[in-house]
Amino acid sequence: MSRIVLGIDPGTASTGYGAVIEESGRLRYLSGGVIKTPSDMPMPDRLLSIHKQLEIVIGETKPEMAAIETIYFNSNQKSAVQVAQARGVAVMTCRLLGVGVAELTPLQVKMALCNAGRADKQQVEHMVRLLLGLDEVPKAHHTSDALAMAITLIHTNTDLKRSIMGVSR
Amino acid sequence: MSRIVLGIDPGTASTGYGAVIEESGRLRYLSGGVIKTPSDMPMPDRLLSIHKQLEIVIGETKPEMAAIETIYFNSNQKSAVQVAQARGVAVMTCRLLGVGVAELTPLQVKMALCNAGRADKQQVEHMVRLLLGLDEVPKAHHTSDALAMAITLIHTNTDLKRSIMGVSR
Repeated sequence: MSRIVLGIDPGTASTGYGAVIEESGRLRYLSGGVIKTPSDMPMPDRLLSIHKQLEIVIGETKPEMAAIETIYFNSNQKSAVQVAQARGVAVMTCRLLGVGVAELTPLQVKMALCNAGRADKQQVEHMVRLLLGLDEVPKAHHTSDALAMAITLIHTNTDLKRSIMGVSR
Repeated sequence: MSRIVLGIDPGTASTGYGAVIEESGRLRYLSGGVIKTPSDMPMPDRLLSIHKQLEIVIGETKPEMAAIETIYFNSNQKSAVQVAQARGVAVMTCRLLGVGVAELTPLQVKMALCNAGRADKQQVEHMVRLLLGLDEVPKAHHTSDALAMAITLIHTNTDLKRSIMGVSR
């Protein structure tokens, strides 16, 4: 039995995605990349572009579930709102295509991959590379983050069951 | 020549909408209401529900343009993120169906309707009722807010031209 999980790291300019396939308990990299939108494009059209490009990614990778991180609050509210808009579009697009969505906290991702809540980006990237047997870390941070989410969801059975029902926190 | 503008006031639980038709410089109420999603529904499914219900509203009202307010920042960041997610879905849905989107600030709405940047909700609602010749204010605040945005966009020629090109701030 195999299962494909798509991790998504949303953003207006760059939305990272990474698909991981689990086969008999083993993980394998399926595909990954970054959905980009041009900065001179009006925001409504950028959101539409994210929707359309993500539809293609989902059509190609055929994931059973998607994993997406909860939004990290920081001092830049404007950026948080823009990420949230892109995130809303990404989550909705998954559900529109029948893909269950599980929301993960950054802590869950760090614990699942590094077993350390204070792990830094490099540690997480290192573990993504090791767990998927990749020769090198994906160039784009967004892609690596997305793969980390996919791995986390596969490793977290509870979330997995929740996500099958389309449930998210 | 007539033109229909759809105002949208997004939210996860309640998304207000209001369609106004402009005919030979006169405004008329076309339709209005609130798109609701149940609180016990998982967030991804609520976002999908907003998308699907808004598709129906757009199909029925056939607007040339949509008007949507910029997000008001307050101390509740969680709520701002949730509104932003719903807003992203609403904006994207408009563009998917070929409807131009113009973003308006709360100040623009207050100035357009009341010619006073400090106008309160009651004043805005009163002007919505007067300008559209309604016997009473729409029961839901969200509907009234959405109608106010539609009126503002019709009154704001600059935004109108921008929006025709799908441009937003």
